[in-house]
Amino acid sequence: MRRLKPPRPSGNSPIIAVIGGSAPTAEEAAAAEAVGRALAEGGAILVCGGLRGVMEAACRGAKSAGGLTIGILPGTDRSEANPYVDIPIVTGIRCARNVIITRTAQAVVAVGGSYGTLSEIGFALSFGVPVVGLGTWELRREGHPPAPIICAATPEEAAARALALAQRTAVGKAHQSLK
Amino acid sequence: MRRLKPPRPSGNSPIIAVIGGSAPTAEEAAAAEAVGRALAEGGAILVCGGLRGVMEAACRGAKSAGGLTIGILPGTDRSEANPYVDIPIVTGIRCARNVIITRTAQAVVAVGGSYGTLSEIGFALSFGVPVVGLGTWELRREGHPPAPIICAATPEEAAARALALAQRTAVGKAHQSLK
Amino acid sequence: MRRLKPPRPSGNSPIIAVIGGSAPTAEEAAAAEAVGRALAEGGAILVCGGLRGVMEAACRGAKSAGGLTIGILPGTDRSEANPYVDIPIVTGIRCARNVIITRTAQAVVAVGGSYGTLSEIGFALSFGVPVVGLGTWELRREGHPPAPIICAATPEEAAARALALAQRTAVGKAHQSLK
Amino acid sequence: MRRLKPPRPSGNSPIIAVIGGSAPTAEEAAAAEAVGRALAEGGAILVCGGLRGVMEAACRGAKSAGGLTIGILPGTDRSEANPYVDIPIVTGIRCARNVIITRTAQAVVAVGGSYGTLSEIGFALSFGVPVVGLGTWELRREGHPPAPIICAATPEEAAARALALAQRTAVGKAHQSLK
Repeated sequence: MRRLKPPRPSGNSPIIAVIGGSAPTAEEAAAAEAVGRALAEGGAILVCGGLRGVMEAACRGAKSAGGLTIGILPGTDRSEANPYVDIPIVTGIRCARNVIITRTAQAVVAVGGSYGTLSEIGFALSFGVPVVGLGTWELRREGHPPAPIICAATPEEAAARALALAQRTAVGKAHQSLK
Repeated sequence: MRRLKPPRPSGNSPIIAVIGGSAPTAEEAAAAEAVGRALAEGGAILVCGGLRGVMEAACRGAKSAGGLTIGILPGTDRSEANPYVDIPIVTGIRCARNVIITRTAQAVVAVGGSYGTLSEIGFALSFGVPVVGLGTWELRREGHPPAPIICAATPEEAAARALALAQRTAVGKAHQSLK
Repeated sequence: MRRLKPPRPSGNSPIIAVIGGSAPTAEEAAAAEAVGRALAEGGAILVCGGLRGVMEAACRGAKSAGGLTIGILPGTDRSEANPYVDIPIVTGIRCARNVIITRTAQAVVAVGGSYGTLSEIGFALSFGVPVVGLGTWELRREGHPPAPIICAATPEEAAARALALAQRTAVGKAHQSLK
Repeated sequence: MRRLKPPRPSGNSPIIAVIGGSAPTAEEAAAAEAVGRALAEGGAILVCGGLRGVMEAACRGAKSAGGLTIGILPGTDRSEANPYVDIPIVTGIRCARNVIITRTAQAVVAVGGSYGTLSEIGFALSFGVPVVGLGTWELRREGHPPAPIICAATPEEAAARALALAQRTAVGKAHQSLK
């Protein structure tokens, strides 16, 4: 069975990242797949780290809804991309590519997550990219308000929040292409 | 007038880079545009540095033939992409992103070129990515054969050589997506 | 008044990072300075992001004890280094340089900290580099143990813990130089 | 026999890179060692890629004259540094670290050289860092003057030219530390 061909990106398509570990629980993988599907249904281009686990599940979900997927790979070989990546970006800079995932996205959905995910959350927050969390890290400092991670209760809510937030980001920093 | 929508990428689409300076001569810009058009007509996805000059001309050419264009941006804002970039990858790592352009491509076409282009040629050759040159650098070391840059006489020849070489690369390192 | 000349590094000198924001409170700056001094007294080379705030305070502390300081700068000009950096490493890759600070260090001390610091903590933990915290982030995920940040009560304790942990790291991954 | 301890860096010490391949001829290795020694005798700090071949020879030469050596490593483990590196900077970004070597240096000496060296020459020239060549690439474009690589006939001349050029660079972009 062939999967759907990816759709044509349009200048209005927001780019949204799904981040999370390469060894998720079954529940986290299912959530990531549902987030990917809902983002594609909402018209977003999915960007992720391109590997297995949460990244693969999110790409699989996006492809099941005919979405377009970008994998920002840490290694030097495009064949390390999971089979649901349409456009493999081969960086070779290992996890320094986490900066690129979060800068490229107009909003980020974090599903579960390991320490690499934590670095991506830190970057997204420092770049002013909104972060929606689904069972991810809680970040506190004594005497400070908690980090502004928007907690979602379901994958669908996470995707909806991210789509709304990406739209808002896009007003300020319009993606100039395809007008 | 609206430009054509970009086509759907397919797993068979090679990714080919066009590299060159941001301040080309009129002749170089015209050549870059013709290369971009011929690559898109040949079914390739275009990757480039996403800025002005040769990069913009190549993207404009690719869009005129309905191609898909990726801009690997050096800065932190997607709005620095030229208007013909479909998918802006925002790296923030300045010209260290030259590594990513050349690793992502399965073949490279160099049009004219400044010192930044020279760094990209060096990376492509060291990664084993074939380089086709159109009025670009000649690289010699005494007592050694010249660097294996394939000289093309016309933009169309450059694109045809790059398409053929990318196909060959793809056999070894198949891009796994969209099967 | 001239500051002390930096000492000669030796193959036994551990490299320890101090990380934290560029706009610390007075208390955090004082703590960073005390950590830097104690690390230098303990024979460590200090690595940091090379800019102002916690980074400058830590370097000033290290220099007051005759230590050697390395600044991994995000920008393109060595003059952005604070005046207490002995060896400015000019990366130009903006905050992707956070990866380099944490990989270069054999232990990390986090003082206070913003979202950039959070990205560095995420990287250090994912690389297996021990993190000692002084009034920094607490990281929790429901159903998981908290992230293994070692809380110190005083700057001196933070430095002592980091020195002890760096020694342990060094056994596994010996720095080969100067034997 | 113990090697000499590295000297204390001082704010007046220029940082000079030696670049070249990891598989040099015996003649190139001897030249790199002589360049490293002459640079250290001239008071420079040596920066290089930290690995074998030209890099190791240059570091060995610098250490034989009591110099200080910095290795900007491509991998994730400090133990990949050659035994003559005093300060291993662990980047993990593979050859994207070539940008850092050339930005950190106030002048570059290229000895022989492969395609990686070519990328470094391209970066140095585009950053305005002077390049002195010893049996390295000649770079020409039809209708343009050749690239401004300063040819040296001997290792001693190469080091002397680089030291003089680094001094000039330092006037414009003073390294602020240790005054």
